[in-house]
Amino acid sequence: MIFDYLKKQRELIDRYIKELLPKGKPDILFEAIEYTLSSGGKRIRPILLLESARAVNPDIEGENIKEILVAIEFVHTYSLVHDDLPAMDDDDFRRGKLTCHKVYGEAMAVLVGDGLLTHAFHLISSNRYLSPEDLIKVIRIISEKTGLYGMIAGQAGDILPDFEDVNFIHQHKTAKFMEACCEIGGIVGGGDGQVQDALKNYGFSIGMAFQIWDDILDEVGDEPKLGKKVRKDKDKNKTTFPKLYDVEVSKKKAFEYVEAAVELLKIIENRDILAQIAKFIVEREV
Amino acid sequence: MIFDYLKKQRELIDRYIKELLPKGKPDILFEAIEYTLSSGGKRIRPILLLESARAVNPDIEGENIKEILVAIEFVHTYSLVHDDLPAMDDDDFRRGKLTCHKVYGEAMAVLVGDGLLTHAFHLISSNRYLSPEDLIKVIRIISEKTGLYGMIAGQAGDILPDFEDVNFIHQHKTAKFMEACCEIGGIVGGGDGQVQDALKNYGFSIGMAFQIWDDILDEVGDEPKLGKKVRKDKDKNKTTFPKLYDVEVSKKKAFEYVEAAVELLKIIENRDILAQIAKFIVEREV
Repeated sequence: MIFDYLKKQRELIDRYIKELLPKGKPDILFEAIEYTLSSGGKRIRPILLLESARAVNPDIEGENIKEILVAIEFVHTYSLVHDDLPAMDDDDFRRGKLTCHKVYGEAMAVLVGDGLLTHAFHLISSNRYLSPEDLIKVIRIISEKTGLYGMIAGQAGDILPDFEDVNFIHQHKTAKFMEACCEIGGIVGGGDGQVQDALKNYGFSIGMAFQIWDDILDEVGDEPKLGKKVRKDKDKNKTTFPKLYDVEVSKKKAFEYVEAAVELLKIIENRDILAQIAKFIVEREV
Repeated sequence: MIFDYLKKQRELIDRYIKELLPKGKPDILFEAIEYTLSSGGKRIRPILLLESARAVNPDIEGENIKEILVAIEFVHTYSLVHDDLPAMDDDDFRRGKLTCHKVYGEAMAVLVGDGLLTHAFHLISSNRYLSPEDLIKVIRIISEKTGLYGMIAGQAGDILPDFEDVNFIHQHKTAKFMEACCEIGGIVGGGDGQVQDALKNYGFSIGMAFQIWDDILDEVGDEPKLGKKVRKDKDKNKTTFPKLYDVEVSKKKAFEYVEAAVELLKIIENRDILAQIAKFIVEREV
């Protein structure tokens, strides 16, 4: 069952995070980093990267690329820490735990985010399995898709009250990062251009499905089960899929993205797990 | 005269920044980035990198490594934008202009900083003059010296009221970044291990002198001339050199660091400009 498999892989990523956890002074900075990273996330982005790599080359072990897997989760975690800040989404809870700035203060939360982001690139540059050429490719892709032409642009659109292009926001805020993970997986696995493109487009499609499903969970989800506040998008008058298209049409759109993602995998032999992950994304608890 | 030379080099760096300025949507994000980058900084860090490279190999042109020079200034600028935030140092002015969050709001300033930092790594990974091996080295050094083991640790020490190790703070907040610039210059110039070490240690020494001099300027400097608020460290009860050792002893310590820096350059033939930069650091207007 995919749920059990994802749980096992999540534990693997958690082991790598623990192993590569930075340590130093001032104590409180590194305590805040450990607190923030141990908040029980799904680790879906590093899992997507690893499974994309293994779909192309089953011999790849997580161990080979653990620095990259952990870096991906660091980038994701930094974005959550900054997104939760009072000046941004102003969230007190994340995955059922107090957010970083609620425990360590706003200034430290800014630094925790900055530190996680910077250290992500340090981790990637420390990997010894990939060639320097491939590592530079990995850095280019991540810094593009989570930077000014990706996630940051999406976040900026999200906070601007008169920016209403929900497709731009979802593509940039969420889909491009998942696209990056799967494309990098294709590079790690040594796939040819066609395979890398298929994985990249698969990642984009499930990223869109993932974000639409998140919108739906925020609209109709159950607060205790999700471990975070719901109905926030509505309170903030955010432009979301359910707001524009209603819940049923949004669900249909998410299913269409999943279908397109599964279709893209056809040229990849070991596609079973990736296909199951795609379907799982729109089966998450409502 | 070194002052005129530095002005010329600053204009060169400004040209590269303009040339490599990211553009995209949402408009306001990229407008905020341009505003923040055009605030008339000294561009001392990219200049140190370029001059270190040219001290080893005079044939190196700024053009060869402009992505790296601009990336260095992006990292410095992001750190200022986040440092100026209300939750951090809460500064309304920087170099005589309103700070990013005063013009564009706190949320946008968080994103501008995150975007500049991420894009710095994108720029470095786009350089075609250095080998991938050297680019990975550059990324490792920058992400270490401005990250959790460098600048971020220094900033964290700086904001913690009971963290009083001023040497740790100055080393991490300022000196390691300048150390990184000069060490990278040594790599770009193709210097051997001894030359790279000399440049690295030179950078560290002038970084310490630079930060001590900044402390002194904050203590006894003239507000209109500096373009920013002075006596801020005292108001915030920050641990600084003048607070611990008084102004005269602090000046002496800064001069000692400059002397040590100049001494380190002895093994480098084209050391004249670097030696003059070292001396210039403790001649800045008080």
